[in-house]
Amino acid sequence: MKQQAPDDSNTVEQVAGNGLLHRRALLGTAALGVVGAGLGLTATGAAAEPLTEQPWGLQPGDNSPAYQTPSKFAKNIVRTLSNPKFEARSSICRTPHHLLEGTTTPNGLHFTIVHTGVPDIDPAAHRLLIHGLVKRPQVFTLDALLRYPLTSRPAFVECGGNSAPLFSPTPIQADVQALHGLASCAEWTGVKLSLLLDECGIDPSAKWFIAEGADAPHLMRSVPLTKGLDDAMIALYQNGEPLMPGNGFPMRLLLPGWEGNLNIKYLRRIKLVTEPAMSLWESQTYTELMPPHRETKGKAYQFTFLNEVKSFITRPSHGHELKQPGIYEISGIAYSGRGKIAKVTISADGGRSWAEAALQAPVMSKAFTRFRMPWRWNGGPALLQSRAWDDQGAVQPTRAEFIAARGELDAVPSVLAFRNHHINTITSWAVDPHGLVRHAYA
Amino acid sequence: MKQQAPDDSNTVEQVAGNGLLHRRALLGTAALGVVGAGLGLTATGAAAEPLTEQPWGLQPGDNSPAYQTPSKFAKNIVRTLSNPKFEARSSICRTPHHLLEGTTTPNGLHFTIVHTGVPDIDPAAHRLLIHGLVKRPQVFTLDALLRYPLTSRPAFVECGGNSAPLFSPTPIQADVQALHGLASCAEWTGVKLSLLLDECGIDPSAKWFIAEGADAPHLMRSVPLTKGLDDAMIALYQNGEPLMPGNGFPMRLLLPGWEGNLNIKYLRRIKLVTEPAMSLWESQTYTELMPPHRETKGKAYQFTFLNEVKSFITRPSHGHELKQPGIYEISGIAYSGRGKIAKVTISADGGRSWAEAALQAPVMSKAFTRFRMPWRWNGGPALLQSRAWDDQGAVQPTRAEFIAARGELDAVPSVLAFRNHHINTITSWAVDPHGLVRHAYA
Repeated sequence: MKQQAPDDSNTVEQVAGNGLLHRRALLGTAALGVVGAGLGLTATGAAAEPLTEQPWGLQPGDNSPAYQTPSKFAKNIVRTLSNPKFEARSSICRTPHHLLEGTTTPNGLHFTIVHTGVPDIDPAAHRLLIHGLVKRPQVFTLDALLRYPLTSRPAFVECGGNSAPLFSPTPIQADVQALHGLASCAEWTGVKLSLLLDECGIDPSAKWFIAEGADAPHLMRSVPLTKGLDDAMIALYQNGEPLMPGNGFPMRLLLPGWEGNLNIKYLRRIKLVTEPAMSLWESQTYTELMPPHRETKGKAYQFTFLNEVKSFITRPSHGHELKQPGIYEISGIAYSGRGKIAKVTISADGGRSWAEAALQAPVMSKAFTRFRMPWRWNGGPALLQSRAWDDQGAVQPTRAEFIAARGELDAVPSVLAFRNHHINTITSWAVDPHGLVRHAYA
Repeated sequence: MKQQAPDDSNTVEQVAGNGLLHRRALLGTAALGVVGAGLGLTATGAAAEPLTEQPWGLQPGDNSPAYQTPSKFAKNIVRTLSNPKFEARSSICRTPHHLLEGTTTPNGLHFTIVHTGVPDIDPAAHRLLIHGLVKRPQVFTLDALLRYPLTSRPAFVECGGNSAPLFSPTPIQADVQALHGLASCAEWTGVKLSLLLDECGIDPSAKWFIAEGADAPHLMRSVPLTKGLDDAMIALYQNGEPLMPGNGFPMRLLLPGWEGNLNIKYLRRIKLVTEPAMSLWESQTYTELMPPHRETKGKAYQFTFLNEVKSFITRPSHGHELKQPGIYEISGIAYSGRGKIAKVTISADGGRSWAEAALQAPVMSKAFTRFRMPWRWNGGPALLQSRAWDDQGAVQPTRAEFIAARGELDAVPSVLAFRNHHINTITSWAVDPHGLVRHAYA
């Protein structure tokens, strides 16, 4: 049953070079013997002991906890910690995309960045102040916010520094968690900021608002008021339950599609103003560098809010191993801060030919979209890439296109120290004849 | 700022009796002074210390964990445990819907029922056998399944015994977790069963399949093959991560919209057969009783697969307290095993008048749909109800309609011991003049 089928390539609809297959190829009689991933049984099912009794079928299991956590056999499916000893610096926790599926990041594995640790906020004592250029400044408790109309939506949050290892002039040998683990997606529920601003009465002179967190850094960012009146939310719930402590409990600003740190966690203040504050966080920390080789060297772009369209293959990806030639599913994530993903194309031959992947419905604006495509690995070298388009006409750049726009890329000492932000180039995974998958440039 | 506004009821669009408001009522200038939920500030924002510095703003927080769990201030947002000492009986864990929002049940809080505890299954040793009336029986490892095309979808799972306390002839004083906590909703990702059956080759004589779990009870249920070829899935991921141990890790059968126990957890076998097995689980345990006062007394319906259309208000609900008259949001969950929710109506006067709630988009088939409606509580008695319709024409019955169809309801000794299954009547919450909310019949 487990014979390989390199010779049947003519019987299956190929859609691009090096084994990319149409999704229909695996349905109906064409599937016979193609996948062949099942373990061999005889035609009558008379395998020796196809189901042996295991310990868990012979004895009682464990008690049920009040709050479930993953199996001990999933103990490696965790966030990586940049600061495990909790020294006096930022703590960066990355989502293990290579081990996840679907479009939701479970709350336990949502990425977090905190600069002075995770605050332990008593929601009963927390307050949100809306003031500045408003007619009726207000202080809101959590209980008060829960009396307003709530709304739910999926949205990704992505750090401006996500994917920064791709600034390296050579491909850093690291997995998708290290490269792209600073983006996650959840269903957020909360109060539209526009409703609260309406309640407070906006002074016509207000053009920006400053959002500030309650934890020790009191991180503050300036946000154009137009975004506040568009789709901004005071988020209170994450995938149905109150926000995780690392993601802003008891409330955060959600600015769908905009750079992560603007989505102020532990939100305590919204102040309407005429001009941006030019705080440390926006004039220095969270900026992106202009090309280093021009007259712009050492200067930074001002206010890069949007997370531009991006995609990456999560399976197979760096660190995975294909144990034998045959059919595999290529699966990955695409998203855009501008709107919905319109199209994702896949190449298995380093960009020489491309075919369109299936997108998991429903495709939601400013949220993760899962793409998938079947692929037959013939046992030879392959170079897997994905490229995304959004419904606003933006397209994910090749590395060459990105360098042409942003200049030669700066060196990055390690995956943990990124010196530039907002890179959304195509990610490439090289498959070698042993089936080992590694990060590559193409 | 916090004055009540009982006199402005004529300025806000009411849509049904006892204070139900149109969603638009809270937008624009109409909101002025209506919600009034903010804490009072003067018009210039000169409240005494509107933001006092709290301990979490003055000191570092905690280290970041590899897997996040909720704040200690959310320690009451947990599942209730029917068997905390893990005695030799089933363990039933209920979802705290009164404390959740949105449409997703977070994995930590998904309901579980296990009969001999939660098994500790090594996914590398687990096997899924598909055999019986197939041309090519197969054994699948988890790794093999991951090579097939995956698909993701939200789906609720509901125990046939969910809401069973409503069989009580008097309204049991219990919260929505105790009454309706045996339904949860997640994004599931896995392999369509139809694809695997196609791979195995279905013998034309096959009409049913028997699904069996790997844990000690080896719970088995018979399922019509038509369902297996429709939307059945071998689910491997739950909200993006591998299944929780209580929800079937490493794999379960997902039969969207069908009674929970049919969605066999720890799935190890699918056997295609000509007739149902009439196993203990389907001939005795998971059956629903016919009306007790007729010639059918003591008999049971055979094969009630579908979870019929249901809805309940989660906020405010039993145990909540409205601290002052004014505007509140009524929020709840609706779902149907037949398809999409088409409409939910709300009454605040015990069913004398009804108005249509807003449904959170996207409305997905056989998944939780969040409904919401603003309501002004005038400080008097109110009786809150929700009623759902699905897109297949099914409607949630009133209690009287349900009794007319199923006969006088049997007594239930407690919320933990349900003796009948599949009740989907309207749930009523009575609000008294003190703002206390209690379970009621109406």
